[in-house]
Amino acid sequence: MLATVLHAPGDIRVEKVPDPQIQMPTDAIIRVIVTCICGSDLWPYRGLDQIGPEGRRIGHEAIGVVEEVGRDVHTLKPGDWVLMPFCFSDGTCEFCQEGLHTACIHKGFFGGQVDGAQAEAVRIPFADGTLYKLAEPADENLLPHLLTLTDVMGTGYHAAKTARVMPGKTVAVVGDGAVALCGVIAAKKLGAERIILLGRHPNRIALAQKFGATDIVSERGETAVARVKEITGGWGAHAVLECVGTELALQTAVQITRPGGSIGRVGVPHHQGIPADITFYNNIFIGGGPAPTRAYMDILLPDILAGKILPGLVFDLSLSLQEIAKGYRAMDERQAIKVLIKP
Amino acid sequence: MLATVLHAPGDIRVEKVPDPQIQMPTDAIIRVIVTCICGSDLWPYRGLDQIGPEGRRIGHEAIGVVEEVGRDVHTLKPGDWVLMPFCFSDGTCEFCQEGLHTACIHKGFFGGQVDGAQAEAVRIPFADGTLYKLAEPADENLLPHLLTLTDVMGTGYHAAKTARVMPGKTVAVVGDGAVALCGVIAAKKLGAERIILLGRHPNRIALAQKFGATDIVSERGETAVARVKEITGGWGAHAVLECVGTELALQTAVQITRPGGSIGRVGVPHHQGIPADITFYNNIFIGGGPAPTRAYMDILLPDILAGKILPGLVFDLSLSLQEIAKGYRAMDERQAIKVLIKP
Repeated sequence: MLATVLHAPGDIRVEKVPDPQIQMPTDAIIRVIVTCICGSDLWPYRGLDQIGPEGRRIGHEAIGVVEEVGRDVHTLKPGDWVLMPFCFSDGTCEFCQEGLHTACIHKGFFGGQVDGAQAEAVRIPFADGTLYKLAEPADENLLPHLLTLTDVMGTGYHAAKTARVMPGKTVAVVGDGAVALCGVIAAKKLGAERIILLGRHPNRIALAQKFGATDIVSERGETAVARVKEITGGWGAHAVLECVGTELALQTAVQITRPGGSIGRVGVPHHQGIPADITFYNNIFIGGGPAPTRAYMDILLPDILAGKILPGLVFDLSLSLQEIAKGYRAMDERQAIKVLIKP
Repeated sequence: MLATVLHAPGDIRVEKVPDPQIQMPTDAIIRVIVTCICGSDLWPYRGLDQIGPEGRRIGHEAIGVVEEVGRDVHTLKPGDWVLMPFCFSDGTCEFCQEGLHTACIHKGFFGGQVDGAQAEAVRIPFADGTLYKLAEPADENLLPHLLTLTDVMGTGYHAAKTARVMPGKTVAVVGDGAVALCGVIAAKKLGAERIILLGRHPNRIALAQKFGATDIVSERGETAVARVKEITGGWGAHAVLECVGTELALQTAVQITRPGGSIGRVGVPHHQGIPADITFYNNIFIGGGPAPTRAYMDILLPDILAGKILPGLVFDLSLSLQEIAKGYRAMDERQAIKVLIKP
């Protein structure tokens, strides 16, 4: 089959690789209907994360059709349509039962512990626990929206939940990537009264406004902090969604959080740590981490099926698998928000 | 009057100083009935916090009797018995109304922005908002318990609340100082099933057990982490109360927190910051900061009056104001848990 392999920073290729095989009785193999490129795929693409000597089989978001199941897979059969969350999980451990699948005692990440999803097919460990079965084959128009449930929409929702967004509160969203934009959707769903987006790209701002952002701050650093404070009566936002992971994003987040407020951070941390004093003296809560998107599918899928939320609008470029290098370039250069890939 | 002045690390004296005067119409002057030495007073005493060229008028916990009030003080009159929280607050701003008095827009700390309470009398800014009026003069036997409401018991409670202690959960308390011991009381009050104290001094351990600790870990560093994990089935505690503030205490706290669990930190931070990766990948919540002890008095006072909690047992040495230097030495050398001072 064909699969994407990241060989070195900036060097990404689609290659012929061996077809995935059932290795454990709890495995399934899915054929990929749609996959996509994630902002976090840019970390290794830019050389900021390890790649490994044999290259990295990358990608962690997919909608697929089950092709084959191991003998201990009981809830899925060939032909089932499924959502593949970025993290695999056994579905039975105490953490999965609590809804924190990303802390599963058997967890691992696609494109990390196992091969990635930017390919024609993927091997799925713990298929019963990992995959979310759709009731029926997905309508073509729904595919982009459903695909966001495997990562960005679930991650934006996690940011909003861990930032304790509540009805009537003021929310600030740091970043204007796909996760941040989904964070706006989540903040609105959770009842935020005012949603401030910190972003600078006109098309992303337009989308944020469509999703529910009420205020836009396009400055950066200290100027951005001052603007948010001005908008919020001097004290900052009750809930801040940190959707980037850089030092600047984190520093901005802690400075625009109202005393007693909360930060939900979902940007993979590429910074020195959380500053101790300002968060302590302002009694700021900090939450977040890898989102249990598997758990949030139950909450968010009905909204998508009912047309209440349209997170798939974050996809502004659609390419074939063969063209994926073009997609990485477009995202790296911020020409595209998020790129949909059809194998 | 007589007051305590810290002149340099280890150099603490009781001196004659001018009597406090009403400076603002919202001020009151209280005569100190009892005050005490706090673990956080040891930071400047040990030279780890600024003292200032003219010395520092230290202390921030007191029970007093109102002697005089400014013309804009409306809820207090001379003769009233009051609890003085470590932080003054106007009682009317949005933060005070939300119960986060330590974020009051007019806040300040006794022994910091204004003179300290280890003295015969104290000037109280925003007396109506700051002071908590007792219904009647306090019984001599209740004084130590009531005094803990001004800081350590309220702070231990804040640690437990921000660590999201809930019924049936496993709690770990890092530290065996007075705040940590009060954290044990708070964890028990909030329904913790198992309370692990990380401490090593036999008399403190005995008190922790009396307060409700079910397990004691006296190792430090990696060994302590391993012990807590062993006790908790491999995953750590749901709620961790960080009651010290050092690098070692923080690192221990983040390592013994169960994925998805929470840390309530109330030890004044004297460390580099909160590690990003472990807290992110384990979806750990971090909360805490200066405790709004003013708000918690309503919750905790009834328990003291009913004899349900006995936080005053943390006082194991009682001295006159004149003897206060002896008290600092005893706490510095960990000969005493907490020292009560009677002017």
